[in-house]
Amino acid sequence: MTDAPRGPGSGSEPPGPPVVSVLRTEADHAWLPPEAFRVLGSRRVLVSGTGPLVDTVHGEVAAACERFGGTVTRAREGTASAGSAYDLLLCLEEAAERGDEGFTLARERGRTVVTATGQRGLLHGLFHVVRLGAAAFDGEHAPEAHRPALATRMLDHWDNVAVHPVMGQVERGYAGGSLFWRDGRARGDLERVRAYGRLLAACGINAVSVNNVNVHEAEAHLLTDRIGDVADIADALRPYGIRTHLSVTFAAPVVLGGLTTADPLQEEVRAWWAGATERVYAAIPDFGGYVVKADSEGQPGPFAYGRSHADGANLLADALAPYGGTVHWRAFVYDHRQDWRDRTTDRARAAYDHFVPLDGAFRDNAVLQVKHGPVDFQTREPVSPVIGAMPRTRLAVEIQATQEYTGQQRHVCALAPMWSQVLRFRPGGAAAARVGELARGGLVAVSNAGDDPYWTGHPLAQANLYAVGRLGWQPDADPLALLDEWIELTFTPEAGPDPERLRAGLRAVLRDSWRTYEKYTAPLGVGFMVQPGHHYGPSVDGYEYSPWGTYHFADRNGIGVDRSRATGTGYAGQYAAPWAEVYESAGTCPDELLLFFHHVPYGHVLHSGTTVIQHIYDTRFEGVAEVAAARETWASLAGLVDDARHARVAERYEEQLRCAREWRDQVNSYFLRKSGVPDAHGRRIH
Amino acid sequence: MTDAPRGPGSGSEPPGPPVVSVLRTEADHAWLPPEAFRVLGSRRVLVSGTGPLVDTVHGEVAAACERFGGTVTRAREGTASAGSAYDLLLCLEEAAERGDEGFTLARERGRTVVTATGQRGLLHGLFHVVRLGAAAFDGEHAPEAHRPALATRMLDHWDNVAVHPVMGQVERGYAGGSLFWRDGRARGDLERVRAYGRLLAACGINAVSVNNVNVHEAEAHLLTDRIGDVADIADALRPYGIRTHLSVTFAAPVVLGGLTTADPLQEEVRAWWAGATERVYAAIPDFGGYVVKADSEGQPGPFAYGRSHADGANLLADALAPYGGTVHWRAFVYDHRQDWRDRTTDRARAAYDHFVPLDGAFRDNAVLQVKHGPVDFQTREPVSPVIGAMPRTRLAVEIQATQEYTGQQRHVCALAPMWSQVLRFRPGGAAAARVGELARGGLVAVSNAGDDPYWTGHPLAQANLYAVGRLGWQPDADPLALLDEWIELTFTPEAGPDPERLRAGLRAVLRDSWRTYEKYTAPLGVGFMVQPGHHYGPSVDGYEYSPWGTYHFADRNGIGVDRSRATGTGYAGQYAAPWAEVYESAGTCPDELLLFFHHVPYGHVLHSGTTVIQHIYDTRFEGVAEVAAARETWASLAGLVDDARHARVAERYEEQLRCAREWRDQVNSYFLRKSGVPDAHGRRIH
Repeated sequence: MTDAPRGPGSGSEPPGPPVVSVLRTEADHAWLPPEAFRVLGSRRVLVSGTGPLVDTVHGEVAAACERFGGTVTRAREGTASAGSAYDLLLCLEEAAERGDEGFTLARERGRTVVTATGQRGLLHGLFHVVRLGAAAFDGEHAPEAHRPALATRMLDHWDNVAVHPVMGQVERGYAGGSLFWRDGRARGDLERVRAYGRLLAACGINAVSVNNVNVHEAEAHLLTDRIGDVADIADALRPYGIRTHLSVTFAAPVVLGGLTTADPLQEEVRAWWAGATERVYAAIPDFGGYVVKADSEGQPGPFAYGRSHADGANLLADALAPYGGTVHWRAFVYDHRQDWRDRTTDRARAAYDHFVPLDGAFRDNAVLQVKHGPVDFQTREPVSPVIGAMPRTRLAVEIQATQEYTGQQRHVCALAPMWSQVLRFRPGGAAAARVGELARGGLVAVSNAGDDPYWTGHPLAQANLYAVGRLGWQPDADPLALLDEWIELTFTPEAGPDPERLRAGLRAVLRDSWRTYEKYTAPLGVGFMVQPGHHYGPSVDGYEYSPWGTYHFADRNGIGVDRSRATGTGYAGQYAAPWAEVYESAGTCPDELLLFFHHVPYGHVLHSGTTVIQHIYDTRFEGVAEVAAARETWASLAGLVDDARHARVAERYEEQLRCAREWRDQVNSYFLRKSGVPDAHGRRIH
Repeated sequence: MTDAPRGPGSGSEPPGPPVVSVLRTEADHAWLPPEAFRVLGSRRVLVSGTGPLVDTVHGEVAAACERFGGTVTRAREGTASAGSAYDLLLCLEEAAERGDEGFTLARERGRTVVTATGQRGLLHGLFHVVRLGAAAFDGEHAPEAHRPALATRMLDHWDNVAVHPVMGQVERGYAGGSLFWRDGRARGDLERVRAYGRLLAACGINAVSVNNVNVHEAEAHLLTDRIGDVADIADALRPYGIRTHLSVTFAAPVVLGGLTTADPLQEEVRAWWAGATERVYAAIPDFGGYVVKADSEGQPGPFAYGRSHADGANLLADALAPYGGTVHWRAFVYDHRQDWRDRTTDRARAAYDHFVPLDGAFRDNAVLQVKHGPVDFQTREPVSPVIGAMPRTRLAVEIQATQEYTGQQRHVCALAPMWSQVLRFRPGGAAAARVGELARGGLVAVSNAGDDPYWTGHPLAQANLYAVGRLGWQPDADPLALLDEWIELTFTPEAGPDPERLRAGLRAVLRDSWRTYEKYTAPLGVGFMVQPGHHYGPSVDGYEYSPWGTYHFADRNGIGVDRSRATGTGYAGQYAAPWAEVYESAGTCPDELLLFFHHVPYGHVLHSGTTVIQHIYDTRFEGVAEVAAARETWASLAGLVDDARHARVAERYEEQLRCAREWRDQVNSYFLRKSGVPDAHGRRIH
């Protein structure tokens, strides 16, 4: 990865450098409120080094000091040996590779020192100090090296340039409009884009793709005649160390280039991509690369020319290679026109079947971007068997911050615990590597941010955006600790009248919210049961007779999908040992995935000791009760959170409770009617 | 009903009157092809009388004669006694009331004579001769009086002026765009509107409402500043004796008039409507009146002011009365935000509960427009109990030509047999009056026509549009005879190489098509089971947990809605004897309505001798087999029908067969999974 290009001010004498403005808007209700900088801003700080990102660091410190009474000094070179005149040193030691994102933190003799060998590292070090708060200036610490586990921590925006007649401005967006586009044009608010970049940098994101992977007419042109719009965004994100990527259509040589083919092995096609890419880099020298959804849900791809997905990905990889760019090639390829009558076809198998045979065939700068589960971002899925099965391929794990299937930012659903489970999973068994280690291509999340004043629609959904970056940096981080981090930064409890009550309340509503959501929606890993199209709210049979490959096969006797090798689709056999065996048998399969792997009678007894049908009833009732309790907890925080934010969340809890009841009642009624088994506790089921 | 105003040419000396052009376009593939006029156009015809509609009659005859070699003479006065110089006399004898639509047909001494006492009657007489064809000039007939049974035969267009974001240009329209509107403006093709009026007149329609009963922003203004657009349409329809009506919003005084209330008892509101209506009649002297959907599915109405629907309807009736106008007030009032958990609320009861207590409270020029069934144009419903229960109210029966729930003009579904059942039904029992006699307010159909070259999307759906007018004229007409009429006019079999095979083929695919459609869709009167929103294709539980009041309550033991008095919602008690008793008991309820009235076990034995579950399986298989057979029959007609029309229908049969299979398989799978009862014949159910 190359570093950001130097701005015009780089190398100039530090005295009197321009203070890079730190944006503050009414909308800035996220994890960098002014108060989060109090500890830092009340100190004596030295910033040393040169370069645009050092300017950014200096600007952040200067703004904080201006607000909280500290002082900042700027020096040209690293001065870690400077005297006791400073409480905090932020030093760029440009000895190592320029792109290095790591930094070292130490504290001795009452002085905190951050050193970095790359500008990005210094920026990360600054935000690390902000996260630490008072602890950064407390006691002594031996030098501690920090370095991201995954080189790429990326957000994919499914933002459309032109408003799509069905999907709108942002596909699966629940946070207002796009930060980048509006009604066919660039939105033009580059200050907001810069503020977004600042938030992302502060949690560790270093790459953003600015448009939907479904590339429609208007969006296709971003690659060519509208590259200037992308360059403007890249300019706004660059000061925070974020590289800009672009989703492109595989058919671009035809659609934009006037060629008669997009065959990846045709020389004219290769030449077209080479030329187009050269022009992209002329506009954006640190451009990150392309994102491609090919041969998927109607998007064009190499299959049309009888070529493999490796052929397709390598075509773009070769075009990007001279400039250090990367192609992110999505593995989300399956038959979306499946016949529901055909029980032999299993969508869950598709990514493995398509891609694993291609292991080793992809270029080094081609990243295969694999959804964390085999189907589509359901509330509960097993980890995709593709991860771990392609050792010679750079895989990125794709997660979904935007809550398409997890409450659409009207429900609280803190996803870090789920993502953490995925990243800690060991596809090769207890002694083997974790997903977080295998994901050499990085962690990619579909963004949940938009032009909403709270960025994410539901103010508490910010915690998911925050966790993306932090888990990318450290995939084995404790997800609950990350929630606490986000709480401390965002709500700065110590600044209020009752910090412990505020912390406790926020933890209470967030920590188990994913499991709460799971409890009232589709049970035991079976997935879907959402309303078709928009995917909000329950429809138990909504996808049962559809072409999308998403079935639960409930009948009067039982429910679930038999994906065993012995009697089912064989999907369980895509896993390595020990998982292939664990999942193969209903006796060893974890409860929470039982119906994903097995069709069982309603009377099947779970490891938990209850029957499947009683589990369905029990957890639906529990889930609603938990939402009701969370709503009360939130209500009790009035006065500890600013009124507008409190009101926004309170309003969303009303909807969450209404919708959770609807889930409970529809799911329970559906299964009571089908199974005929009464609730053991005699509760009312309609 | 007043007659059309006289055009400038009325009263002028007949010799050399302008020949009113008879439109012929490529699009004119309906029941007035040139060939249908051959018998008439090859005769010596005398047209006598004055007035614009006589001009229309003369124009029709003149065009036919020009094409087929006949001659037409125009005389000022009725000359029924004219000599043998003519084969056909069309004579206006303006002795009786001007608006009379009746006519008399006689044939003696080799001369056919049509006499009418009103211009409209003469026009109807002309088209009657066209329908009779050669038979009109064969043998001798004693004078035979013809007169419409229902004074109003009306089409309601659910056409939007502005394209609605969800519903599009035409709500529930399956025939291209609107004939009247496009993208917020008048479509402007008044020739096409005139051609449409001609088709309608030829089947007996005499009123058209030009915009959707859901009146949105743009449409509201048709009443005031955009009345000119309506007047243009009225001008184009008037030569064919058709009056123009307008859907208005009950909130017009607020929305358009700037008042703070639309309370029907407020004097300012009454004054506003009086003024607005005066201006409408200044623009359209023969304006028909208003159509109103009030307090229904979100439309405003009198309930907001604590007033009754009679108060609301009478407000508009009073405004219209001075000009001879009529308000059509829809009885489609129900709770569309019902809780599916609440089994005591029954949408089927709503119209009766709301309106029957108001019997006698409506003005004479207020027509209460009642859907033929109690729910919403399902394939099979009982006749609405409102009809027959309001003897002191002018009721219109509303039917739906646009095939919202009957295949959306992708499936062949000739509806005349269904409508005929409704119109022949005797709400008071065997000795009492039929619906067709009780509907003093007329027959109203939601139009299925649009700017499609074949007018109705599916060329065979024209038969439904045709039947609307013919059944309005004669509600006890044989619906199969009407289909034959339409076939003869539209396809003019005698003009082709094998008339009998063409006739037989068309009859075969049309006659039972409604029952075929019923066989593969929702069984035994239970209704719905369509996909939510667009209502096309199966979704057995699609409306089962919705707020729309449309449930089947299927569980593992049985299915159906208990609407009995004894144990159900009491809906059956809304009928008079003998129907209240017939419907009350599952033992006497007709099979085809069983699940509408009763919840029964799957093993319940129908009068037909089969169980409910076996009936479901059997009829689904039969329905698909019948569609497959119809497709083959249609294929065999290639060469007997013009190629473009044949191809269009053939293409739609492919889709109908695909969709019918989907219905069969989804419905059968759903009930097999739920009931566990295997098909007695061992056919494959998925």
